[in-house]
Amino acid sequence: MNTIGTLFKITSFGESHGAFVGCVIDGCPAGFKPDIERMQKAVNLRKTGQNAHASQRLEDDQIQIVSGLFEGRCTGSPLCILIQNQDSRPQDYENLKEVFRPNHADFTYQQKYGFRDHRGGGRSSVRVTVPLVAAGNLALQILESFAAVQIHSYVSAIGGIQIPSQFHSNQIDWEELYQHPLRVPIHPLRNEMEERVNDCLQHGDTLGGCIQVLIDGVPAGWGEPIFGKLQASLAHAMMSIPSAKAFEYGDGFESTTQHGSFHNDSFITEEGHIRTASNRSGGIQGGISNGEEIHFRIGFKPISSIRSTQKTVNKEGSEVDLNITGRHDVCAVPRALPIVEAYTAFTLLDACLQQQSKNHQKF
Amino acid sequence: MNTIGTLFKITSFGESHGAFVGCVIDGCPAGFKPDIERMQKAVNLRKTGQNAHASQRLEDDQIQIVSGLFEGRCTGSPLCILIQNQDSRPQDYENLKEVFRPNHADFTYQQKYGFRDHRGGGRSSVRVTVPLVAAGNLALQILESFAAVQIHSYVSAIGGIQIPSQFHSNQIDWEELYQHPLRVPIHPLRNEMEERVNDCLQHGDTLGGCIQVLIDGVPAGWGEPIFGKLQASLAHAMMSIPSAKAFEYGDGFESTTQHGSFHNDSFITEEGHIRTASNRSGGIQGGISNGEEIHFRIGFKPISSIRSTQKTVNKEGSEVDLNITGRHDVCAVPRALPIVEAYTAFTLLDACLQQQSKNHQKF
Amino acid sequence: MNTIGTLFKITSFGESHGAFVGCVIDGCPAGFKPDIERMQKAVNLRKTGQNAHASQRLEDDQIQIVSGLFEGRCTGSPLCILIQNQDSRPQDYENLKEVFRPNHADFTYQQKYGFRDHRGGGRSSVRVTVPLVAAGNLALQILESFAAVQIHSYVSAIGGIQIPSQFHSNQIDWEELYQHPLRVPIHPLRNEMEERVNDCLQHGDTLGGCIQVLIDGVPAGWGEPIFGKLQASLAHAMMSIPSAKAFEYGDGFESTTQHGSFHNDSFITEEGHIRTASNRSGGIQGGISNGEEIHFRIGFKPISSIRSTQKTVNKEGSEVDLNITGRHDVCAVPRALPIVEAYTAFTLLDACLQQQSKNHQKF
Amino acid sequence: MNTIGTLFKITSFGESHGAFVGCVIDGCPAGFKPDIERMQKAVNLRKTGQNAHASQRLEDDQIQIVSGLFEGRCTGSPLCILIQNQDSRPQDYENLKEVFRPNHADFTYQQKYGFRDHRGGGRSSVRVTVPLVAAGNLALQILESFAAVQIHSYVSAIGGIQIPSQFHSNQIDWEELYQHPLRVPIHPLRNEMEERVNDCLQHGDTLGGCIQVLIDGVPAGWGEPIFGKLQASLAHAMMSIPSAKAFEYGDGFESTTQHGSFHNDSFITEEGHIRTASNRSGGIQGGISNGEEIHFRIGFKPISSIRSTQKTVNKEGSEVDLNITGRHDVCAVPRALPIVEAYTAFTLLDACLQQQSKNHQKF
Repeated sequence: MNTIGTLFKITSFGESHGAFVGCVIDGCPAGFKPDIERMQKAVNLRKTGQNAHASQRLEDDQIQIVSGLFEGRCTGSPLCILIQNQDSRPQDYENLKEVFRPNHADFTYQQKYGFRDHRGGGRSSVRVTVPLVAAGNLALQILESFAAVQIHSYVSAIGGIQIPSQFHSNQIDWEELYQHPLRVPIHPLRNEMEERVNDCLQHGDTLGGCIQVLIDGVPAGWGEPIFGKLQASLAHAMMSIPSAKAFEYGDGFESTTQHGSFHNDSFITEEGHIRTASNRSGGIQGGISNGEEIHFRIGFKPISSIRSTQKTVNKEGSEVDLNITGRHDVCAVPRALPIVEAYTAFTLLDACLQQQSKNHQKF
Repeated sequence: MNTIGTLFKITSFGESHGAFVGCVIDGCPAGFKPDIERMQKAVNLRKTGQNAHASQRLEDDQIQIVSGLFEGRCTGSPLCILIQNQDSRPQDYENLKEVFRPNHADFTYQQKYGFRDHRGGGRSSVRVTVPLVAAGNLALQILESFAAVQIHSYVSAIGGIQIPSQFHSNQIDWEELYQHPLRVPIHPLRNEMEERVNDCLQHGDTLGGCIQVLIDGVPAGWGEPIFGKLQASLAHAMMSIPSAKAFEYGDGFESTTQHGSFHNDSFITEEGHIRTASNRSGGIQGGISNGEEIHFRIGFKPISSIRSTQKTVNKEGSEVDLNITGRHDVCAVPRALPIVEAYTAFTLLDACLQQQSKNHQKF
Repeated sequence: MNTIGTLFKITSFGESHGAFVGCVIDGCPAGFKPDIERMQKAVNLRKTGQNAHASQRLEDDQIQIVSGLFEGRCTGSPLCILIQNQDSRPQDYENLKEVFRPNHADFTYQQKYGFRDHRGGGRSSVRVTVPLVAAGNLALQILESFAAVQIHSYVSAIGGIQIPSQFHSNQIDWEELYQHPLRVPIHPLRNEMEERVNDCLQHGDTLGGCIQVLIDGVPAGWGEPIFGKLQASLAHAMMSIPSAKAFEYGDGFESTTQHGSFHNDSFITEEGHIRTASNRSGGIQGGISNGEEIHFRIGFKPISSIRSTQKTVNKEGSEVDLNITGRHDVCAVPRALPIVEAYTAFTLLDACLQQQSKNHQKF
Repeated sequence: MNTIGTLFKITSFGESHGAFVGCVIDGCPAGFKPDIERMQKAVNLRKTGQNAHASQRLEDDQIQIVSGLFEGRCTGSPLCILIQNQDSRPQDYENLKEVFRPNHADFTYQQKYGFRDHRGGGRSSVRVTVPLVAAGNLALQILESFAAVQIHSYVSAIGGIQIPSQFHSNQIDWEELYQHPLRVPIHPLRNEMEERVNDCLQHGDTLGGCIQVLIDGVPAGWGEPIFGKLQASLAHAMMSIPSAKAFEYGDGFESTTQHGSFHNDSFITEEGHIRTASNRSGGIQGGISNGEEIHFRIGFKPISSIRSTQKTVNKEGSEVDLNITGRHDVCAVPRALPIVEAYTAFTLLDACLQQQSKNHQKF
């Protein structure tokens, strides 16, 4: 399954060391003028080589849209986005050809397909997400033409240091956030996180963490009642991001410890609009957005390529010592931020277009 | 979206107070002999009225398979499962016609569709899952013909009392589990949970909790690399269950606090088979099963129908005091167990059939 | 594949001698009030036992809608339509259990599935189309709320006697047409057709024929450019009707004999609207409706159950003489009319909803 | 809808004067070694500029496969095929910007999308089919690994001159056929067809014609019983080819004139195999292949770009005289041959994989 979406459909193709990574986007409304520079900016935020903690592979990640546009506007036909793989160094991976790296997809791809492209993880590489980040930004732009949707996210935990949930997002300076290498908002714990990352870098180890997502401006009514519940589509999208291990929305696991009388969000009327007094539901009730802020959290495991020697086996099952060189992040969570936002955007746009398509208002 | 699956497709229909709830199942292999009694037993495990903590609505939940069978075997044509709604008392809901119950889908359905079937939550009722439990059990039976898959689950937390993750599932007597009203395994904390539930019943309040799922026997190779990753499909399925707020697999959120050197599961060779020494991955790597036990956890909020008076608003936005009578659970988590197992089964079967369909072994 | 449609989705289930035939319809706009009596009337037009040329199986074909309605309006949830099989006489088919009837699906089902439900053709029975006729009529009703669409059809040829294509449909009295057993419009050739059918009845033989379809009121813009071209969707739908062997739209095969200078439909302006001077295109250009009348023609083979003795083989491959008794039509084409109209309607509605969903007008 | 197929999925993108035309192919079995040269040859057979009757646009149509391959074998990930548009001369079309060419998609695209890419027909150009021809040839190669399938086709009619249906395909020298500019087999009528084409070229007019398709080696059991009948999928595919107006299989429209006693194909046993004595069914019964030769016929209208002056209107609805220059075919039917074979191949492969996936043989 390399396609996602019902009315806004994205088909992914490409692998780490092929000629291109790319995607085909079906469902852009004819006449819409994408801001391609803005798409490129989103892609750049995911780029490698931006700081000492990140992989040093250098790619200019220039997006090319090779179809579906005429005089700068979407024609109603599919957009194909291509991004060249330039700085691929397959030779870096030659020694991995026969070896299964722990927690990578080497073993499972081998078992699934009978053989595998060992160069940079092939199709399992996070590089595959680059064109999807572009597609997600395009989705966001289209979304904005339907509703004043704003998608924000930040790194809320790294290596066990966690910004408490009472922290208010309205304290966040979003411009500043993206300039910080860890994409953690200004907070007393930020320094501590930096230290942990630096410490980890010195030990050749890696760290996981959490991303908090906040979405404003989604009107009530998006999401489907049985399958395609908004939280189910978001969970599917988030769990499709490499290294994601956990998803919760609203009060999430915390809500399992609450009483109903506490957890329930009372309805109130505010300036003529019905809304909820609290938002433990996280903006979704019965699978459908209720007009409040949608918020959810994703947990990412530490990345698997560590620089210390690991025990593993090769294709024959013989024990080998594995030393991973190559270019890898210490903590991938900050670079996952644009991916999370992109996947959120195309999931929401699909829900939006499905709701737009229902024509209920006629009857 | 009322259909789920690619090769094993289930289409859901029906609502709390209509004539029938049901589903159509497309993709049962021709010649397969379903054990209908076993399907009925799975459905019965989800039934209401089984104990003091559960809703007292009485339904015999008899499944009828009205198509797709000939001489007890699947013909290759779709199976339609019907279950009659017998003990529906729409009058119980008359007073709710104009009112939005907190944390129910009343408000969001109204916003989405412009009007709503207020009787028992209509399409948002958990009653809609009954035929899906039957479908899931059928899926399990078909699964078993491909691999020695065993799906087990238990209630691991209620109202904040949580069986620690070190607890070993091989200590569980699965027969005994299902006889216990809370479906918590024998454990020092079980009594405490019972007390909390009883206490809560007396106060007219409700509780949430967690379910732990354990799947043995899935061979390596199920799940798709980009979208349709096994964890993404499972997350989608689990977050489609009413009241689910959180999903994690393997070490889940806990893994965000670990170092890569700790989290990574080393590959070893055991009796000629490659496997992992530990299983922090939860049996899935790169979106694909690796042959180890698959385990994940779902968090459920406390159910929304509490018996104490709540503040809410009606359709006009005027404040009203809401008193929910009717028949409702105190803690729905135990009754969610068969639903979790069913949704797990049809998700796995679809992944299994997709892998079966690939014909890679030929080349 | 038992489901058709993208935004208006119909899932078929049931077989000739099961408990029910039925379908689930997903995509009815919430709030829409279906005229169920009108749906029943459409179903009745397909009924057996209406005259001497038609099968004498008696079914009251009463449709039950068991979900998706509340106070007479669609809730936005799927509608399940059930129709009971009452006058099934499986014993009539006992002698066919081991035999492959020529041109029936007995042999191909056996080869595909390894065994088959031999009672009345099982899933291959035209009886499966009954609930789809109801669904198609519902589709027509919804279509009418979007555009002044009118779907008409008539039997234009039987057994080689063919009303010439110059015949103008505006001469047809549509009420009268449906009262005539052959559903041929008033025309000098009608008597001749009747005689041929009667003659054939006496010889225990069967006849095929053609149906002409005429659709007014489809606005320009329906249909998709590459796959899902309007003619491709219509061809798929028509070739899904049992016994259909041929499809052509506009001038069809006749156009293969024309010059471009003759075939091309000039654009003109009429009362401020751009339209075509002729309509050899049949109302579709580049896969998309152009606002003119859409017209196409379907050819049906003679039905396969003849009353004279036929040579065939049984499951073991031994030659047998086959005598088909049971209840069968002489010429099924008149009864195919409501099926053709129904399949046309749900195909058009799906194209309509897809075009409605595009939101191009915004940009 | 720019994607076709269920298990072998092709997503099309690109337009006449964009950077690339291409497609993404999902569902190639891992390990399969495509013969890329053979794919290129199939594409070359569709090329323009091959003779005096064909469009003189020169494209080298070199296919590039930019993903999904590793060491010459399919990895199980999607293949993206790119073909550059080199000899595009958008200026040729400048004068068409405001004008609706008769029988082209100019008007309908304008109505559907609100604006259009007028350069060479944009997305409606037959150029979009080039990568699909490559994909179809790949499908054929994969098909051949499952069964000894042979797909042949020839031009059976041009401008009303028609090779009679009694003509036996085993008289055809398939090598010779493809060397003949009209791709008509050796037959007394071939010269006559050539003369008609030459005559038409001198008058600046165009011609339509028919293609006959013959498929050997399809085993019994492919195709689905209700929707996705083999003839319905083939009809959908064929009616997706630009200029196709008609489809018939087996005896097609001719069968509407036959008696059942004549039309029925008796079953016989030949060398231990059950088969039919005649093949008026065209190799498909009840929507499913019966193991006999599958044969069908497609009718194509004359192409729309004629060189004589035509009356039409511009966007404002004002009458204009249209003179189409540019580079266009006289008779497109011979060049449609590789398209027909390609679309046939991917339709059959999808049916084959669906049948392979059913696992019925287990039960």
